Amino acid sequence: YVSKQMLQFGLCGAGIVESIGEGVTSVKPGDKVLMFPVPECRECSSCLHPKGNFFIPPTGLMLDGTSRFTCRGRKIYHLYGTSTFTEYTVVHEIAVGKIDDGAPMDRVCIISCGVPTGFGAVFNTARVTPGSTCVVFGLGGIGSAVVMACKASGASRIIGVDINEEKFPWARDLGVTDCLNPQKLEKPVQEVVVEMTGNGVDFAFEAIGLIDTMVGALESCHPSYGVCVIIGVAPSNSQLIFDPLLLLSGRILKGGAVGEYKTRDSIPKLVTDYMEKKINTDPLITHKFPFKSINKAFELFQAGHW
Amino acid sequence: YVSKQMLQFGLCGAGIVESIGEGVTSVKPGDKVLMFPVPECRECSSCLHPKGNFFIPPTGLMLDGTSRFTCRGRKIYHLYGTSTFTEYTVVHEIAVGKIDDGAPMDRVCIISCGVPTGFGAVFNTARVTPGSTCVVFGLGGIGSAVVMACKASGASRIIGVDINEEKFPWARDLGVTDCLNPQKLEKPVQEVVVEMTGNGVDFAFEAIGLIDTMVGALESCHPSYGVCVIIGVAPSNSQLIFDPLLLLSGRILKGGAVGEYKTRDSIPKLVTDYMEKKINTDPLITHKFPFKSINKAFELFQAGHW
Repeated sequence: YVSKQMLQFGLCGAGIVESIGEGVTSVKPGDKVLMFPVPECRECSSCLHPKGNFFIPPTGLMLDGTSRFTCRGRKIYHLYGTSTFTEYTVVHEIAVGKIDDGAPMDRVCIISCGVPTGFGAVFNTARVTPGSTCVVFGLGGIGSAVVMACKASGASRIIGVDINEEKFPWARDLGVTDCLNPQKLEKPVQEVVVEMTGNGVDFAFEAIGLIDTMVGALESCHPSYGVCVIIGVAPSNSQLIFDPLLLLSGRILKGGAVGEYKTRDSIPKLVTDYMEKKINTDPLITHKFPFKSINKAFELFQAGHW
Repeated sequence: YVSKQMLQFGLCGAGIVESIGEGVTSVKPGDKVLMFPVPECRECSSCLHPKGNFFIPPTGLMLDGTSRFTCRGRKIYHLYGTSTFTEYTVVHEIAVGKIDDGAPMDRVCIISCGVPTGFGAVFNTARVTPGSTCVVFGLGGIGSAVVMACKASGASRIIGVDINEEKFPWARDLGVTDCLNPQKLEKPVQEVVVEMTGNGVDFAFEAIGLIDTMVGALESCHPSYGVCVIIGVAPSNSQLIFDPLLLLSGRILKGGAVGEYKTRDSIPKLVTDYMEKKINTDPLITHKFPFKSINKAFELFQAGHW
């Protein structure tokens, strides 16, 4: 099962352990697991720091520098150490976490990356406070998880920004109080957000991955204490460009991978929360496709339909 | 008295109240005061927020849109609402704070802006922790105040970066453990800092105001949890340019005016701390000039001598 939010990459998903290598102790064959693009080794400076999580740039190889996939004798590269667009994959022990035996795989798969990326941006990175104002750029899977978490944090106003108005009724159901389509505005959306909120929002989230919306999110923040969290991944070799005076007045610009969760320690607990109905992530599942229709899913994704 | 750190601007200093306008209650004629380029109105969204301080872009005018200076009938502009390169100035009540009657004006003047800018970057913005590693770009007046505050916070390693090696012995006396001159290195200073610390520092401070050193400070930080504080003011219309992936791994980029202190509430207390010998800011005073030699001071400043 692969998570739709991350369909573009195939870097997260749920699976069942088929076999284990020498020395593996945390999972056994038959266990249901989630796979994490940000693993947790529990030994490095990032894992040992209260705030850090393990972040390695993707090399397409296992940590020992090898690949475990071949096709007709040719080497095939891994993806983020997970490679979930496969029926069988090989992953490091540090990249899997055992989940409840009764977990429905076609539903909790999105908790391996998309859900914690959105939830953690709100709960861990921004730490949204009750009564605060928020803006979310991009109402796709991750942006929607951000909206749910802002609402759960008691935000009094959640402004949703997207160019696809089909998402607006659904976004309102999740907690968005005001919807903005930048293509229908006569001035930059950040100026509208600042006007709507007096001086700018307390918390801004960029869940698209475009430079323009990253700068827009930063400029939407209150100059003295606004916090801007960059979640979206910009195209390779992009450059974020803005006037540093935007920071001088007191704004904070942050990022974080997979919501800054320590993945193995924390994410299986989110599955337990789901099983105990403490959180409900089902509204984030809009489509399901069999593996053979994966290209149809890509088409919808790239057309911005979710 | 004007503070040397801010000599370039003439925006901070100490004074004695000569007269007060209608409705002024917090100071009276004869009071010793500090003047704050970042005032505190106690009414706006910034002042009412725990983290905010009042930040207004300089207009060269009083808040009512007038100037109170003339020269041979022509209007002269104010500077940051303080205009401290004068024998007499007119300031708003929200921009002054009464200090101890016994405070030595030629010493506490630097506590109006330069000292809290450095101290607050460490204590309020970065919140440097005991045992942490720090790097400070620029060992001028503000950078030196940063060093003192990092040491007081229990930092285990403080790397100082400057192209003027004359400052190094003095910086070591203040608490710097390692001095780096980027012009003498064979690779970018941020790469050297990362190598020296394993993965990057916990806290980086930019106290120069150059785009290159701002990016260098950000890149010097630990990718998962490093905090970069921009203190320096870049030239007008500068653009900070960097790969947003630097944030995705978890780095935090912050700024703040006058160390994010609420100036009238907090800064006079720093003068009291100085009087009670809880802090000693005298080492930050390297030169004194009479007003008629102000241009000599500018020459030394611009030559990077302090």
